[in-house]
Amino acid sequence: MNIVDKLYNRVEKNGMVCLGLDTSLAYLPEGFKKTYEDDGEAIFEFNKRIIDKTLDVVACYKVQIAYYEALGLKGLKAYKDTLAYLRKKDAIIIADIKRGDIAATAKMYAKAHFEGDFESDFITLSPYMGMDSIEPYLEYVKDRNKGLFVLVRTSNKGAEDFEALDLKDGGKLYDNVGERVHILGKEFLGECSYSQIGGVLGCTQREEVKAMRESLNQMFFLIPGYGAQGGTAEDVCEYLKDGNGGVVNSSRKILLAYKERNMEEDFAEASRIEAIAMRDAINAEVKRVKGEN
Amino acid sequence: MNIVDKLYNRVEKNGMVCLGLDTSLAYLPEGFKKTYEDDGEAIFEFNKRIIDKTLDVVACYKVQIAYYEALGLKGLKAYKDTLAYLRKKDAIIIADIKRGDIAATAKMYAKAHFEGDFESDFITLSPYMGMDSIEPYLEYVKDRNKGLFVLVRTSNKGAEDFEALDLKDGGKLYDNVGERVHILGKEFLGECSYSQIGGVLGCTQREEVKAMRESLNQMFFLIPGYGAQGGTAEDVCEYLKDGNGGVVNSSRKILLAYKERNMEEDFAEASRIEAIAMRDAINAEVKRVKGEN
Repeated sequence: MNIVDKLYNRVEKNGMVCLGLDTSLAYLPEGFKKTYEDDGEAIFEFNKRIIDKTLDVVACYKVQIAYYEALGLKGLKAYKDTLAYLRKKDAIIIADIKRGDIAATAKMYAKAHFEGDFESDFITLSPYMGMDSIEPYLEYVKDRNKGLFVLVRTSNKGAEDFEALDLKDGGKLYDNVGERVHILGKEFLGECSYSQIGGVLGCTQREEVKAMRESLNQMFFLIPGYGAQGGTAEDVCEYLKDGNGGVVNSSRKILLAYKERNMEEDFAEASRIEAIAMRDAINAEVKRVKGEN
Repeated sequence: MNIVDKLYNRVEKNGMVCLGLDTSLAYLPEGFKKTYEDDGEAIFEFNKRIIDKTLDVVACYKVQIAYYEALGLKGLKAYKDTLAYLRKKDAIIIADIKRGDIAATAKMYAKAHFEGDFESDFITLSPYMGMDSIEPYLEYVKDRNKGLFVLVRTSNKGAEDFEALDLKDGGKLYDNVGERVHILGKEFLGECSYSQIGGVLGCTQREEVKAMRESLNQMFFLIPGYGAQGGTAEDVCEYLKDGNGGVVNSSRKILLAYKERNMEEDFAEASRIEAIAMRDAINAEVKRVKGEN
């Protein structure tokens, strides 16, 4: 099955939560961490327990490689083990790597993250260097059923610096990037009408979200900024036509749910409860907005 | 000594060549490769011999992490070993990682590439997500004498797609990025008058190069696109005020110099000859242009 259809179906079945495994060593409960000699192993075991408890309530997992790189080789071993475990469980993996480089280098990144030790289903890309920094991945999109999420508009404050600059020919930089990526994506549509080439679109003003959802109507969205980064159900639901067409990432708020709930010993169950709460809150908002329209 | 002064002095002493260790397994001479069981070890040993033969004729080494990631954990072991060897030899290391992410993630990348297994002197960054994706690295710039090269204008064809878009308020996107990075850099000047925060500036039209060298007068440049990517000595010399103020990267043309010269058995010597030839060609052009003006 086309990977975007698989993701679409997963959203239909489990809801739109993308669980971000941005697993910092500092996030692990102390009692749990000290039972492992190797930090990488502790991180992998933490991830594993959370994965086991959330497979049926999330659409996919986004693994942020920076948190693993920060621990060097042993961290990347934990990254490899986490991806292998997700694949074994038939979970959908988004490798959040935000790479962007010239074609010869992009080919190497494609090999790195679409096969071998670090194989994932989707990767995130940064578009600054242009379309020829994205094209080398298309071979994998086509021949190996892989997918991309290209940064279009992000949810951080700095998005105003360059992404939101007004262009001489009209629109903003992110409009231009969104349009180019959307057009490229038309060659890779699944049966769900979305493309294997998706976009990262952060939570912003509601009118802007509406306009982007309409113009980028075949783009599947990876929506960051929920939870710890301040995004609310109201912010994101406009991106989700009828509750699908995108996944909403939350990392820290789910991984650290055990703290607020005093569930250190059963941290994975706390993550499950938090993921369900997030899914239900967004679903309720989607329904409310649908009723309004 | 401030890292940018160290780099400036290295250019004064050894010339402006930045040797790109974008070491693909396919670049290794067959006879050499087959003496190693482990691909990662073969790559590290290849790098080591080239480093030994070029330390006194290049300014620094740029290690492109994608080529190592492509081999998974064993590739990243070779990456780690290569950086450790360069540090041991007191060579200056630019880790070409082109990261760009939200602040919490950027902190993790800073930790990953400015300390521990993958410690380097400079890293490359992509600015798409804005200045708050660059700021988390400044702590390391300040407290640990590290440096940055932020993508401003690259030498690939796709640079026209977004980097070169005209902005409503005048100039192009890369002008805006260059200016913001240049201003940020003013807080981190070395004695050589350049900043620890440099920029990646590709070889483009000569008039454009002149204008950028003048406006970004405290920015040290990392100049890609030389050699295999088509850049010539004439293209790059305008960036180098009096032969300094930047380093010029060449990867494939130096790593594969043994092929053209039929020096498979002494590949490292071929790389040395090529690096010297490149340095001398650029120096000659710098002198010629100075005479002209």
